Amino acid sequence: MSVTAPAGFTAAGVAAGVAAGHKPAGAPDLALVVNEGPSLAAAGVVTTNRVKGAPVLWTEQVLRAGAVSAVLLDSGCANACTGPLGFQDTHAAVERAARALDRNAAQIAVAATGPMGVRPALDRLLPGIDLAAGQLSEFGGERAARAIMTTDTQPKTAAARGGNGDGNGGGSGSGTAAGWTVGGMAKGGAMLAPSLATLLVVLTTDAEVPAPALDRALRAATRATFERIDADGVASPNDTVLLLASGASQVTPDADEFAEAVHAVCADLARQLVKDADGATKEIRVEVTGAAGEEAALTAARAVAGDALVKAALRAEDPAWPRVVAAVGASGVAVEPHRLAVAVNGVQVCRGAAPADDPAAVDLRFREVTLAVDLGAGDCSATVWTTDATAAAPRPTHHPAPLPTSHPHPRAESV
Amino acid sequence: MSVTAPAGFTAAGVAAGVAAGHKPAGAPDLALVVNEGPSLAAAGVVTTNRVKGAPVLWTEQVLRAGAVSAVLLDSGCANACTGPLGFQDTHAAVERAARALDRNAAQIAVAATGPMGVRPALDRLLPGIDLAAGQLSEFGGERAARAIMTTDTQPKTAAARGGNGDGNGGGSGSGTAAGWTVGGMAKGGAMLAPSLATLLVVLTTDAEVPAPALDRALRAATRATFERIDADGVASPNDTVLLLASGASQVTPDADEFAEAVHAVCADLARQLVKDADGATKEIRVEVTGAAGEEAALTAARAVAGDALVKAALRAEDPAWPRVVAAVGASGVAVEPHRLAVAVNGVQVCRGAAPADDPAAVDLRFREVTLAVDLGAGDCSATVWTTDATAAAPRPTHHPAPLPTSHPHPRAESV
Repeated sequence: MSVTAPAGFTAAGVAAGVAAGHKPAGAPDLALVVNEGPSLAAAGVVTTNRVKGAPVLWTEQVLRAGAVSAVLLDSGCANACTGPLGFQDTHAAVERAARALDRNAAQIAVAATGPMGVRPALDRLLPGIDLAAGQLSEFGGERAARAIMTTDTQPKTAAARGGNGDGNGGGSGSGTAAGWTVGGMAKGGAMLAPSLATLLVVLTTDAEVPAPALDRALRAATRATFERIDADGVASPNDTVLLLASGASQVTPDADEFAEAVHAVCADLARQLVKDADGATKEIRVEVTGAAGEEAALTAARAVAGDALVKAALRAEDPAWPRVVAAVGASGVAVEPHRLAVAVNGVQVCRGAAPADDPAAVDLRFREVTLAVDLGAGDCSATVWTTDATAAAPRPTHHPAPLPTSHPHPRAESV
Repeated sequence: MSVTAPAGFTAAGVAAGVAAGHKPAGAPDLALVVNEGPSLAAAGVVTTNRVKGAPVLWTEQVLRAGAVSAVLLDSGCANACTGPLGFQDTHAAVERAARALDRNAAQIAVAATGPMGVRPALDRLLPGIDLAAGQLSEFGGERAARAIMTTDTQPKTAAARGGNGDGNGGGSGSGTAAGWTVGGMAKGGAMLAPSLATLLVVLTTDAEVPAPALDRALRAATRATFERIDADGVASPNDTVLLLASGASQVTPDADEFAEAVHAVCADLARQLVKDADGATKEIRVEVTGAAGEEAALTAARAVAGDALVKAALRAEDPAWPRVVAAVGASGVAVEPHRLAVAVNGVQVCRGAAPADDPAAVDLRFREVTLAVDLGAGDCSATVWTTDATAAAPRPTHHPAPLPTSHPHPRAESV
């Protein structure tokens, strides 16, 4: 699993002290992922935010040439909203990594997460880079995945094999003949958590795939996975998803099979991000059907997934279907009220935007909740995943959130 | 003040018992506002939600003819998401009001707020209508304003005088010669509160103004006031703003002067709505300048006003300017990061999307907070008002919300 599942990659995660105050003392907070080649082909998708962190600004430049030899990641400081001085700090970190790894600085990507508006502690970051460079290993993927965690309670890693591979993710970095592997690690998940944690993802593969094909596969997979767990559309200034190909398997995969493997790893990581969202007690799957177009379906699904009162109601185990109706009605997409229907965990509580089956029959005791909304306006559909976590309901371990009590006329349904 | 400040109007507020369980026993929960003429000219603005409550569907039909002789309001049941049966209930209530008032049912508007997805209790609503009709008075405006309250802690009323009026709102319903008055009442405020309370507003005037001119004045005023306190753009299925003109002053006002008076009353009511938002501890004024267009300025201002982490940070008295920067960056409008600036309560904490003056100099102890954001991308501006109230932070009196504690690297600024 993780970024060292494919051949041709080494990684390290070290405790550089850059996340002092955020992570327990001694927890790894700085990671390196190194592509040992022979290929350095790479692609990336970065935040749509108009304000980008210094690491993103740097990485965008690196990605233009389609070659990445190493990725430097830290969970101590986002280095966003820091201006030209912050960019100089990122540059200094890259130069240090280039020296430590004996690589070209122009091929070193950077990704970072942590506080915004403050510059990184170079006195810890730079020695940390040297430390990590000295600990690179083909077994380092798990530790790298730990080093990028912020509010995550678990590291997130995944892998998928293709070609004549044996179907297991492996873990030693050795590919089988004619097979190839996609591995990956992730942290955060924009909009899932009170901290609106940056989404950082590094995917690796030992398949022989040129940069343009990597780009196509990565964009398609990102659109269908990471962008579907971003409930309210606010992109962090630092969101970064990278895909590096070493070519070490010496196998050129079928394009569709490769795209499918990249999608599978992204879907696996996305699901783990939802499961571990900061402060969540419910995982909410919003399935919209009957939309006039796919974009409309997605807009309506995001409107429901991002509705603070829907989250609050489900947290209180109240199906609150009128809030779902109100949210799609306000989303701006075409809705036919007389055909609008809502099912909560399989119980059709609303037909024609009016009460149908008894909401008391909805079992909301479990963590997974499915809201199925038929807009009655077409044939298109989209699914978005979210949780009941909101900014004002921090992790229970830090600030116990008051759970709304049951009420004959739930406040959440009032307008 | 209130809807009976202008001549030619009577009103009543009675305890019909329709809001049992929501409001204290004996509190008024049903209101009538009656236009005694001679004119019945009227205009209205209703929710943009594609799913409209039965009262809104009814009122839309009434408004087409531009004449309203009475408005029936209740705070017991929104009668939204109730389908054809709910519409029949609204129709039955209107017919009862028509009989009780000896008016044409097609000229009686309805507005309601309360739980969605349940039908009104006609056994209380219909007798309540008779009761209210028997208590109509030119002094009934204040009691009507109390009857429409839901989570509001205070009734909201306002008035402005024009023409040769004496500048006071008056309160007896008697206009002075050549002068005219605009009065009004309001409750709720979409998006300001955990309950996403419906916005109900009734404005009255004794000026002689035909329906099309009322419509123009009302739409302009609504756009600049009530639509600027709607932070995240989710319109309740029941939002309704009505303006009724009795013509009793026999004065036809100057169009600009009249529009200004309507605006003044709407602005006064909007400000009261912000002040009384459910669970709010801060009133937040978001001023966006330097936008490429007015729509862009409004979009950016709404993005900041609707950002749950900006609210959470200000609630904790943390200026958290990087969250403001991230929110405008993600809003999709043109932003020039190197010119982007943020001031919090007059302290320029951010220039060029980077740290500037010391955030410790920002005094956030008081209820009023101003966030001034210069996008650096043009000459247009917009202001939006919001509060720190969120769905997951219910009124302190019911569920004390945990206040985030101070932290050297505030969580809210992390990405």
